Amino acid sequence: MTMAYSAIKHQTIIRVNENGSVIAPDELATEEPLEIRLEFGPQTNRQIRNIAVTMRTPGNDAELAAGFLFTEGIIRDADDVAHVAHCFIACAENRENVIQVSFDENTVPHLQNSERNFFTTSSCGVCGKGSIAAIRTVNNNWQPDDTNTVTDAVLYTLPDILRHHQSVFDDTGGLHASALFGANGQFLLSREDVGRHNALDKLIGAVLLDKDCDFQTPLKDHILMLSGRASFELVQKAVMAGINIIAAVGAPSSLAVQLAEEFNCTLIGFLRGKRFNIYTGSHRVIMAANVVAQPAL
Amino acid sequence: MTMAYSAIKHQTIIRVNENGSVIAPDELATEEPLEIRLEFGPQTNRQIRNIAVTMRTPGNDAELAAGFLFTEGIIRDADDVAHVAHCFIACAENRENVIQVSFDENTVPHLQNSERNFFTTSSCGVCGKGSIAAIRTVNNNWQPDDTNTVTDAVLYTLPDILRHHQSVFDDTGGLHASALFGANGQFLLSREDVGRHNALDKLIGAVLLDKDCDFQTPLKDHILMLSGRASFELVQKAVMAGINIIAAVGAPSSLAVQLAEEFNCTLIGFLRGKRFNIYTGSHRVIMAANVVAQPAL
Repeated sequence: MTMAYSAIKHQTIIRVNENGSVIAPDELATEEPLEIRLEFGPQTNRQIRNIAVTMRTPGNDAELAAGFLFTEGIIRDADDVAHVAHCFIACAENRENVIQVSFDENTVPHLQNSERNFFTTSSCGVCGKGSIAAIRTVNNNWQPDDTNTVTDAVLYTLPDILRHHQSVFDDTGGLHASALFGANGQFLLSREDVGRHNALDKLIGAVLLDKDCDFQTPLKDHILMLSGRASFELVQKAVMAGINIIAAVGAPSSLAVQLAEEFNCTLIGFLRGKRFNIYTGSHRVIMAANVVAQPAL
Repeated sequence: MTMAYSAIKHQTIIRVNENGSVIAPDELATEEPLEIRLEFGPQTNRQIRNIAVTMRTPGNDAELAAGFLFTEGIIRDADDVAHVAHCFIACAENRENVIQVSFDENTVPHLQNSERNFFTTSSCGVCGKGSIAAIRTVNNNWQPDDTNTVTDAVLYTLPDILRHHQSVFDDTGGLHASALFGANGQFLLSREDVGRHNALDKLIGAVLLDKDCDFQTPLKDHILMLSGRASFELVQKAVMAGINIIAAVGAPSSLAVQLAEEFNCTLIGFLRGKRFNIYTGSHRVIMAANVVAQPAL
């Protein structure tokens, strides 16, 4: 199998500053479409359905597909999936941009969930409340776990560790990352992508596909660290994986905060240097002795 | 009309740093779904079709809808659209999250273009080349304009001017922005959103809907400035609007560079302080006298 794509693409550019300009080699984060196809149904009548196309950075495509199907509620478990592989029916040129997820003939993908992002259950239109209700419908009903905690000291260490593991970002400056940590701050796993939702799907998919892994969904004893902002979509994916502590380098959106609140998640934003903001679920954050006052949210 | 949503939502948070923590008021960038509906067909048989749901920051929704339809190739011109308004058939609670674009009975939306992002024309799968070909199919065939130029001195000034106009970002730290400048660096228009593609659709939609505006598509004498990274999707939307100089604060992706190259666009990235990188179309960038060597790309 030839790898047609890598995560980095070389490009000759012109670097300009006040002193002049030079032609120089540079590295770009690769962005290519990935089509996710499902193959399912009885042997006598197998169906193939295109379920999504996402612009992603090549690499960990099977994880991305598995994570996407799981966080969209189309599969409930890795056991639902018999096989994930690039599609060799596709022509040689774009083979690596098509990934096919095959189901046993007795397993049915929950396709009714796949349009959740496009049209919510409300008959008269969409709203934030409806979007949250739709997630409640498809999620795995994890019990919110209040025993999971994290100290401020551990939180302060996470951005540097994440940054250290962002290998492609170092080369290109162009990738988002998601990382999973233990509650004591031990680094477990990270994934990168041009799309922040893809980085998180790859991370969750990696956990799902590795059955020998020490940690499994629901990821209720862990911390999710995001390199950028926390949108509704990212909190939704975390909630689907049973994650209850989410920390982001950037700002959360209003709907991300609302969703975290409804699912009893701890949401932390602007985690930079020795400071952060707690938006929801402050009961899981243990402050050091020098804290002036620890109010409840 | 009651405005149910604003671009900013107030939230009480806990701010933590090494010295302690305080409960404090904070402002979040609002994120809410917007459903875009089309109404078209003969008076005797009007159809309503849901075309997309996007997570956006409320405000300039008509511009967002018009810009989205235009950059997706579903409308060719603002004249295609008879009326754009929030949908008062929707229930009161989510009325502002549904926008309806009405067509004259003789005008047909180009719906065949609307699935471009999901399934490209290739029968055997997707690839970057196919994605670019699909855009060639739906675009307005602007002639690439090589007379438009920009100086390095003008480019250096753009990030500060953009930042100055990011009013919601100042409050929340959570929004992307797109701005349009004249080739001499004069600020013309900017729009903000939690989604970077929405900020650009709002900007292009604002130009389309304001027929008294001094500048119209194709925006061939202008510069587009992006607050973040330049992805395929953003360059695609710019190309659809006839923009030929794109400058971004962040990194471009490989497919963004490829698309810019194929459409003879100038793509500039990492525009920060007094430096930038030219990825494509260097012939439109005029360097100052102190340039050591001006190579061609």
